[in-house]
Amino acid sequence: MSDAQTQKVLDHIDADFDNSLQRLFALLRIKSISADPAFAGDCKAAADHLAGDIASLGFDARVRPTAGHPAVVAKSNGKGNGGGARPHVLFYGHYDVQPVDPLNLWHRPPFEPVVTDHADGRKIIVARGAEDDKGQLMTFIEACRAWKSATGSLPLDITFLIEGEEEVGSKNFAPFLAANKDELKADYALVCDTGMWDPNTPAITTSLRGLVYDEVRIKAARRDLHSGLFGGAARNPIRVLTYILGGLFDENGHITIPGFYDGVKDLPPDILAQWKKLNLTPETFLKPVGLSIPAGEKGRLLIEQVSSRPTCSINGIVGGYTGEGSKTVIPAEASAKISFRLVEGQDPAKIRKAFRDYVTARIPGDCKVEFGDHSMAPAIALPWDMKALSAAKKALTEEWGREAVLFGSGGSIPVVADFKKTLGLESLLVGFGLDDDNIHSPNEKYDLKSFHKGIRSWARILAELAALPR
Amino acid sequence: MSDAQTQKVLDHIDADFDNSLQRLFALLRIKSISADPAFAGDCKAAADHLAGDIASLGFDARVRPTAGHPAVVAKSNGKGNGGGARPHVLFYGHYDVQPVDPLNLWHRPPFEPVVTDHADGRKIIVARGAEDDKGQLMTFIEACRAWKSATGSLPLDITFLIEGEEEVGSKNFAPFLAANKDELKADYALVCDTGMWDPNTPAITTSLRGLVYDEVRIKAARRDLHSGLFGGAARNPIRVLTYILGGLFDENGHITIPGFYDGVKDLPPDILAQWKKLNLTPETFLKPVGLSIPAGEKGRLLIEQVSSRPTCSINGIVGGYTGEGSKTVIPAEASAKISFRLVEGQDPAKIRKAFRDYVTARIPGDCKVEFGDHSMAPAIALPWDMKALSAAKKALTEEWGREAVLFGSGGSIPVVADFKKTLGLESLLVGFGLDDDNIHSPNEKYDLKSFHKGIRSWARILAELAALPR
Repeated sequence: MSDAQTQKVLDHIDADFDNSLQRLFALLRIKSISADPAFAGDCKAAADHLAGDIASLGFDARVRPTAGHPAVVAKSNGKGNGGGARPHVLFYGHYDVQPVDPLNLWHRPPFEPVVTDHADGRKIIVARGAEDDKGQLMTFIEACRAWKSATGSLPLDITFLIEGEEEVGSKNFAPFLAANKDELKADYALVCDTGMWDPNTPAITTSLRGLVYDEVRIKAARRDLHSGLFGGAARNPIRVLTYILGGLFDENGHITIPGFYDGVKDLPPDILAQWKKLNLTPETFLKPVGLSIPAGEKGRLLIEQVSSRPTCSINGIVGGYTGEGSKTVIPAEASAKISFRLVEGQDPAKIRKAFRDYVTARIPGDCKVEFGDHSMAPAIALPWDMKALSAAKKALTEEWGREAVLFGSGGSIPVVADFKKTLGLESLLVGFGLDDDNIHSPNEKYDLKSFHKGIRSWARILAELAALPR
Repeated sequence: MSDAQTQKVLDHIDADFDNSLQRLFALLRIKSISADPAFAGDCKAAADHLAGDIASLGFDARVRPTAGHPAVVAKSNGKGNGGGARPHVLFYGHYDVQPVDPLNLWHRPPFEPVVTDHADGRKIIVARGAEDDKGQLMTFIEACRAWKSATGSLPLDITFLIEGEEEVGSKNFAPFLAANKDELKADYALVCDTGMWDPNTPAITTSLRGLVYDEVRIKAARRDLHSGLFGGAARNPIRVLTYILGGLFDENGHITIPGFYDGVKDLPPDILAQWKKLNLTPETFLKPVGLSIPAGEKGRLLIEQVSSRPTCSINGIVGGYTGEGSKTVIPAEASAKISFRLVEGQDPAKIRKAFRDYVTARIPGDCKVEFGDHSMAPAIALPWDMKALSAAKKALTEEWGREAVLFGSGGSIPVVADFKKTLGLESLLVGFGLDDDNIHSPNEKYDLKSFHKGIRSWARILAELAALPR
C-alpha cells in the first residue's frame, strides 16, 4: 500500500463519518440481548443485519446457525481459507449485548442511541452496546468500507467471524469453530473487544484473564416458611449462602479456596518495573466511579490487582423477600452467581472443582446445593514478538500521536483461547474502549472520538498488516 | 347464659355454615396486600366490606382513617367504653394479608378461594389470607352473627378493632390506639391470630416473641462496574454484605452480636418439664416441610428454639445480576432484610442498636450503609392467672373434647404490647391456625374444621366470658 492510498482512505473516513454513525445507530437499535431468551429474535435480526451490511462490501456473507444464537461468517476472497497470495486475517467481534437492568438507572432508553455531551465536554454515543461490542465491531467494518470505497479493494484478505453469545460465555461457539475450522483458517486473528490505556493513548492487549463463572443454588425446606413459627428451627438457605460466601476471602483479601493460587506466578521484575512506571493510581482509576481504596489483595499494586492477579467476584445474589416493605419469611432457596478471573498457570477446570468442593463441604444437613455452569476459559498470554503486533503498534502510534501501550487486561475473551486451540491462530487485540464506558452497566457509552479514530486506526493497521512479509 | 341458649347458637352455626363460608370467600377475594402501595385501594375496600358486614349485626361500625391503611372500629352498645353493666371485650383482628410472591408456586390464583382436599384427606380452604387473618377474624364475626341470629342479642358487650397494617409492622396503629384510647376501653382484649397445638388439640397462647425487623443496604461505587475491568480493585457490596451476615452466627448457632442475649432467662424447670412432655419432635414439626434437623442453638429443645429462645432470620437478600444466564458485574449496592424474634428480657431498641453497631463496625472504606426500620416490638408474656383464660380453656376443652394446651408462640403480634401499654388491657390469645397452613407462603390454607369449630369455639367462649364476675 502506498501512503497516498492510506491517506485517501483516511480522508474518505472523515468525509463519510456521519454515515458511519448512522450505520452504527441502526445496529444499536436492535435489542440483541443474548442472556434473555425473550430476545432471541432480536439476536437473529442483528445477525441478519450484519450479514447484509458486510455483503454490501462485496463479501460472501452468511448467517450461520449454531446450537444457540447464530454467528455471521463473511469472506472477502470467496474461499477464505488463508491459502491465497495475500495476507489473510480473521476478524472477530460479537453482536450480542448485556441485559439492561437496572433499567431505572438509564437516563434514556438503552436501545435509542444518541450522541450527547459527557460532563467533561467529550462527545459520546450512548446506548447498550455503544462500546461492547457493536461500536468496536463497527470501527473495523467501517474501515473496510472506506478501503473499498476509496480504493476499490481491500489491502488484504479478510474473514469476518461475528458471534452472538459472547456475553453468555460463548458456549456454542467453540463447537462451531471446531466444526468449521478449515474454512476459518487465516494467518492470525484480529479482535476488537478491548480498551485504550486512556482517552488519548492507544493500547494493544497482550494478556487476558481467564474466567470461571458458576451459579450456586441452595435449597432447604420444600416451601417458604414463616420466620415466627419456624425461625430458630428451620434451616435458612440465605444464612447458609452468606456464611459460605462470607468466608471466601481472608482479612488480607486472599481467596480462601484451597489450591486457588496454585501455579500463579509473580510478575517478572522487569515487567513489574514497567508497570510501576504506568502509575495506575486510585485517583485515576477508582475516583471516577466514586471509590478511593484498592479492595484487592493487600501488598499488590492496583495494576496487579486488576490484571495479573486472580480474583473472585460475587456478581449476583437473591433469596427470600426482596420487594417493598417486609415479609417474615424463611425462603425455600437462595442463589448466587460467582465468577473467578484467572491468570496464567491456573487451570479453569481445577478452579471450578476446588470452588464447588469448598461450597459442598460447607452445606449443612437438610440443605442441597446445585451448581450451574456459565463459563470456563483459561487465561491468555499473547506472544510479544508477533510481527503483526509491531505493525499495529506503529499504525496506532501514527494515528494517535502517542506511543501505543502494551498491557495485560483484567477482562476475559474466552474465544481467544479457542482461536489458539482450535484454529492454531494467535490473536492481535486492539480496541478503543475506555474505563468509563459503563459497559455492562446503565448508560453505556463510546466516545465519538473512539469511534472515529478507531475506524481510522483500523484503516492504518490494515495497510501495515498488508505490507508485512508472510 | 343458659346451656340451652349456647346449644341453640351452636346449632345455628352448623345450619348456617355454608353461608359463613361464602361470607369468608367474599372477604378473601379482596386483594388487601398492605406491603404493596399498588393495593391500597383493595385495603380500603376490605375495610369498607368488613364495616358493612359488622354493621349488619347491629354494631355502630365505622371505617376510621389512620396515617396508613384504615382501621375498622365497631361498637355493640353504641358507647363502647367498657362502662356498661355487662362484661365488655375488645376484639382484635387484621384484614391485611402478605404479598403473594412467588406467584408461580401457587397452584391456583391466590385471591380465588376454594374448598379442596388436602393430601391427607382434610378439607381445606385455600387462598391468601385463608388463615392469616381473614379466616381467623371471620370465626369471631360468625360467632357474633350466630348469637344475634339465634338469640336476638350478644351475651356481652363487644368492640371490634380491625387493622390493615399488621403484616407491615402496625406502624400507624399504636398512634391510632393512643388517639382513641378512651373509646377503645374494655375489660380485656380478645385476639384471634394464633394457632392450635395440633389439628385436634386447641390452644391458648400465653407468650409471644417480640420482633425487630431491619433492612440493610450497602453502597459502594456510584454505578455498576464490569468485574473483568474492576474485579480485584473495586469494593463489592455483595461481598461486604455476605461477610457481615455470614458472621452473625457461631458454630453452635448462637448469634454473635455483642449483648444480644443480655437479659434472656432460661425457662423455669417446671415449665421446661411441662414442655418436654409436649414432645415437639422434628418428625412432627419439621418433616412436613421437608426438613429433619433443628437448625437453632445447640443444646436447646426444638420447642425452646421456636418459642422461648431469641432468633435471627435473614428474610431476603438481593444484589447484582439475578436474571437468566450470567452478567459480569460488580453492583453498586446490595441489600438484605433481617429480623430478630425477641423474648422476655430483651429490649427491642437495644437489640436494634446492637445489630446496627455490629454492621456499621464491619463496613470497610469506600462503602456506606443505610438502615431501614420495618418493625420493633417487645416480647409479651401474658398472666397465667387471668380469669378469662380459665373460662376460655373450659370452652375450648368442651368444644374439641381435648384439654386446651397453654403454650408460648414463636410468632409476634406487636399490638398485644400496645394494648397493654396504651389501653391497659391484657389479651386473651385464641386461634385455630395450624403449622401447615402455609401462612406468608404460596398456597396458604385454613382447615375447614378450623373455620367451623373455630366459630363454635368462639360462641362457647363468649358464653363463658359473659358468665364471669366482673
